[in-house]
Amino acid sequence: MTENTRVLFKSRPIGWVDASHFEIVTAPMADPGDGEVLVRNIFMSLDPYMRGRMRDEARYTAGFTLGEVLDGGGVGEIVVSNVDQFSAGDLVTGRLGWENFTVTTADLLNKVDGNVGSLSHYLGVLGMPSMTAWVGMRNIGQAKEGEAVYVSAASGAVGQVAGQIAKLQGCYVAGSAGSDQKVAYIRDELGFDGAFNYKTASSLDDALSAACPKGIDVYFENVGGAMLEAVLLQLNPHARIIACGMISQYNLEKPEGVRNLSTMVGNKVKMQGFIVSDHMDLQAEFMAEMSGWLADGKVKYREDVTQGVENAPAAFIGMLKGENFGKQVVQISEP
Amino acid sequence: MTENTRVLFKSRPIGWVDASHFEIVTAPMADPGDGEVLVRNIFMSLDPYMRGRMRDEARYTAGFTLGEVLDGGGVGEIVVSNVDQFSAGDLVTGRLGWENFTVTTADLLNKVDGNVGSLSHYLGVLGMPSMTAWVGMRNIGQAKEGEAVYVSAASGAVGQVAGQIAKLQGCYVAGSAGSDQKVAYIRDELGFDGAFNYKTASSLDDALSAACPKGIDVYFENVGGAMLEAVLLQLNPHARIIACGMISQYNLEKPEGVRNLSTMVGNKVKMQGFIVSDHMDLQAEFMAEMSGWLADGKVKYREDVTQGVENAPAAFIGMLKGENFGKQVVQISEP
Repeated sequence: MTENTRVLFKSRPIGWVDASHFEIVTAPMADPGDGEVLVRNIFMSLDPYMRGRMRDEARYTAGFTLGEVLDGGGVGEIVVSNVDQFSAGDLVTGRLGWENFTVTTADLLNKVDGNVGSLSHYLGVLGMPSMTAWVGMRNIGQAKEGEAVYVSAASGAVGQVAGQIAKLQGCYVAGSAGSDQKVAYIRDELGFDGAFNYKTASSLDDALSAACPKGIDVYFENVGGAMLEAVLLQLNPHARIIACGMISQYNLEKPEGVRNLSTMVGNKVKMQGFIVSDHMDLQAEFMAEMSGWLADGKVKYREDVTQGVENAPAAFIGMLKGENFGKQVVQISEP
Repeated sequence: MTENTRVLFKSRPIGWVDASHFEIVTAPMADPGDGEVLVRNIFMSLDPYMRGRMRDEARYTAGFTLGEVLDGGGVGEIVVSNVDQFSAGDLVTGRLGWENFTVTTADLLNKVDGNVGSLSHYLGVLGMPSMTAWVGMRNIGQAKEGEAVYVSAASGAVGQVAGQIAKLQGCYVAGSAGSDQKVAYIRDELGFDGAFNYKTASSLDDALSAACPKGIDVYFENVGGAMLEAVLLQLNPHARIIACGMISQYNLEKPEGVRNLSTMVGNKVKMQGFIVSDHMDLQAEFMAEMSGWLADGKVKYREDVTQGVENAPAAFIGMLKGENFGKQVVQISEP
């Protein structure tokens, strides 16, 4: 194959993303120039934060450029190298395009070991989402043994790891997800102590207080909006909210308001946002700890693998709607 | 005078507090029993947090009891003492009633030195509101020299001290208040670098960005609601929000929602609530530092003094509407 299927950013969504915001084109495979490499892409990551990169005022990562190929975390194999650091055949991870082949520079890539369960793990349990969970629990949540931790979007790329870390720390852990299958996964496979389906719960307040009978000391926040409002009523004094994401709000033209923030004062609550890329000094420590847990079977990880780069837009839209079950990746070619 | 005018909590407000929620009665002065003292009340404090004590589900301080006298911080003189710790004539501060004379126990009182500008200072610049500002700036805000600090309700009991502490730390300081006189006070008397009247500003967003041209690193939050929503758009990365109070919300049956909390994630914002009574271990340090600043003229303090305990309800209602100019106290008797 020497043709390159590419997914371009065609137009900027207002409200929900749909297929019209993407354009799939086929182009000849480009030749890498001096100081460049050609990568055959194997897996690519789809993550909620990418919705933010579609905005005009994208803040904390560079926004996507209209008419250009979309990009994100990926794993691939060096096909042609015009740099000293890499040779053909090397496996790499880094920022790669939503396309079969990417021409890029060495500074955006890191060599990886192929001896992991799946190369896609570098986009999940050994990659950015898992490190996000680990950094959030470590630096902000600081859950102590016996405390109660609640995780929303708990079967997702970040949530499933956040909850398992809390279990390893001796916490009571509850989570919510959007289907009975996901709820069964976090309860039966991951060992969460409490779990509920937020889509079928007749009352978020009741479901939360049943799942967290002793209140919540640490909330790993992936959802925002009405979920945050409900959680604020269940927090124990001195609770910490790890503000990792608020996916319920990303596609709303008019986000929902959270009306009970004043409870944070009397309840002495801390809510803190963070971005994992600010904490890359911790990466070696994260990789050592998480690799060990994974090898020992102490952390499990579920992925949702879509085949074919041309199906990336549909998978991305589905993920924003919660249709994925586990970390969403796209397999672009065989390892 | 041996009769005791007392303000009782008559009924629980839903929405705005009004005169019907209070009852003023006259009772004979009570005799202190064994282990009790009789205090002649001189000044009493009115504070926004008291609105929370009127709720059924009052959280962090004991709620007011229907039919009983209201209470709060006060300063008075011991008239009769049946305890070893105090003698008649001692000046004390502590929890006292909204009444001319209070019978109480020694553990709720502390002796004070009368050699301060006014005994009412123990309820303000040398008391709980000022220590709230000091603890919030110290433990949560941690503003560094050159950073931009914004204070809402900036001429109030807490806000005026918070802003002056930030100035003493070498920060750029802006504030907002609800009248042109208050704005002139914080700008011309207290030396704030930026100031605006939030009631007459045509756009909070524009007024904030004009007052804080380099964004906001620390927000001393006294207001909540629409003000918080506007501030979130002006925050610099890694900003800290000192969640001290949200007075705009206390009297609303349906509080306003804050719709842009997801900006806290990408902008890595920390918002933290606190209660000064959790930090009494710092009181000696606070008193030493604040007394020094006050004596040196480095901190100024404005009070709004209402005469007569029977006027406390109207003063309290006015304060919740922002009608006070400076720390609201009630003078009950001559020092």
